[in-house]
Amino acid sequence: MQRMSRRADFPTIVQSGTEIRQQVRLFQQRGDRVGMVPTMGSLHDGHLSLVDAARAECDVVMTSVFVNPTQFAPHEDYQRYPRDLERDVELLAERGCDYVFAPSVDEMYPSGYETSIDVGSVAKPFEGEQRPTHFAGVATVVLKLLNLVPADAVYFGQKDYQQTLVVERMIADLNVPIDVVVCPTVREADGLAMSSRNAYLSDADRHRATALYASLQQTKQLVTQGERRTAELRRAMRQHLSQTGIEIDYIAMVAAGTVDEVDTVDGPTVALIAAQVGQTRLIDNIQIG
Amino acid sequence: MQRMSRRADFPTIVQSGTEIRQQVRLFQQRGDRVGMVPTMGSLHDGHLSLVDAARAECDVVMTSVFVNPTQFAPHEDYQRYPRDLERDVELLAERGCDYVFAPSVDEMYPSGYETSIDVGSVAKPFEGEQRPTHFAGVATVVLKLLNLVPADAVYFGQKDYQQTLVVERMIADLNVPIDVVVCPTVREADGLAMSSRNAYLSDADRHRATALYASLQQTKQLVTQGERRTAELRRAMRQHLSQTGIEIDYIAMVAAGTVDEVDTVDGPTVALIAAQVGQTRLIDNIQIG
Repeated sequence: MQRMSRRADFPTIVQSGTEIRQQVRLFQQRGDRVGMVPTMGSLHDGHLSLVDAARAECDVVMTSVFVNPTQFAPHEDYQRYPRDLERDVELLAERGCDYVFAPSVDEMYPSGYETSIDVGSVAKPFEGEQRPTHFAGVATVVLKLLNLVPADAVYFGQKDYQQTLVVERMIADLNVPIDVVVCPTVREADGLAMSSRNAYLSDADRHRATALYASLQQTKQLVTQGERRTAELRRAMRQHLSQTGIEIDYIAMVAAGTVDEVDTVDGPTVALIAAQVGQTRLIDNIQIG
Repeated sequence: MQRMSRRADFPTIVQSGTEIRQQVRLFQQRGDRVGMVPTMGSLHDGHLSLVDAARAECDVVMTSVFVNPTQFAPHEDYQRYPRDLERDVELLAERGCDYVFAPSVDEMYPSGYETSIDVGSVAKPFEGEQRPTHFAGVATVVLKLLNLVPADAVYFGQKDYQQTLVVERMIADLNVPIDVVVCPTVREADGLAMSSRNAYLSDADRHRATALYASLQQTKQLVTQGERRTAELRRAMRQHLSQTGIEIDYIAMVAAGTVDEVDTVDGPTVALIAAQVGQTRLIDNIQIG
């Protein structure tokens, strides 16, 4: 099987859905495994770790860069969400990404567009409660992107825990033929989970924000020390954060792989937190049991 | 390019989604065009005309036979909907269908299944009003079937006018890479649109039911004679049906390709009717302008 020359210094940038799909099919016809990393751009080491994972497991790596309007509520930060395609492409080149799919909003949502996907109960609590239209927007755009870039594997970060469950549910329920790979959360040196929204933080808020991961770590330690009652663990997290000026949206302990809250930690359990730090809403999670 | 031997006396029956998808991909890798006819079985000449169309345009023809529970409301006829796979397969063999995909309900809706697709305004009036969960069920199962049988073209009948719009909207909005082909309604000698539900009709109701198409034909004739006001056309249809014992669900005149009702027939226009004939709900439509 003859291989196309794929690796260049810079990835090929494609804006047309029809073109990128043809490209994917060509690679697959040659027997290549295609990996896809959906992003909203403004790339950080979290995204790039997904590209690394795809690079390690696939013959061809494609990254989509699309700030998806339908997953933002009207009052949210769609307009000010950071965008810098040129820098993103440079970072992707360094990691050996082969293609960047960067469609316009008109390409993705032409006039008349109305369809949306409801994945049911996994999308309802936590982020779904705080952001009622968010996961329909996520599920729908991910399905659209996977129909345009029909890759063999798609990569997501564990930082967006509930999002990974929503995507997995949608892909299973709709029989989308793709492997979902979830990669570990990448953190700053002081533990803050990497997020494009960290760029919004003032210096003071950036310092405050470290308390999120610290509170999760403390929870894990309490579990190790024998505290299994999640009411106690949540109380300890609230106390830990009470002096920081951080406003908690929710704290929850769920059975791993679900959004089902548990009373005691007696199996694989994930602690979730969402909070306002100054003007910025951040989320994080770790496995605590 | 060497061709596989595909035509046998009987189509190959496949129950597993993974298997049928592999089969489709194999054909496509050889350059074959694959046509797909989604049905709920109980095949009549309407379905078979879709198979004929696919046979004429494609190298490989696949028909799915699946009575989809999610497009029936609890009070509807899911349980008694006619099923006869053996006879369906015989009819498909006569028309040169190559593969029958006949999944089980468990294969299509394993435990935990929750996702559904809302295609927006095109699904709201008419059938959507009479059967509020129907089109979400249709859109979702069609997408699932097309992910399992990722054909190049999919065939639907014009008889289910609004359904064709729902499917086209869903396929466009979600970037599903497939051509949608809509084929003319096939009718009995006396004009009744073919439908698996015609089998429910008593002799007397079967006779009554011919009034549906007759009333549509009369409408078309009135338009030809110069009547353009749809209020008048609807009134005439109601009058035509008033002595038949048929209970009208709705009569509507819409701009062709839409569900938008029009006041006057001054462009391509479709007349829609849904009615109860005895215990059986029937729909029909024709283009009147």
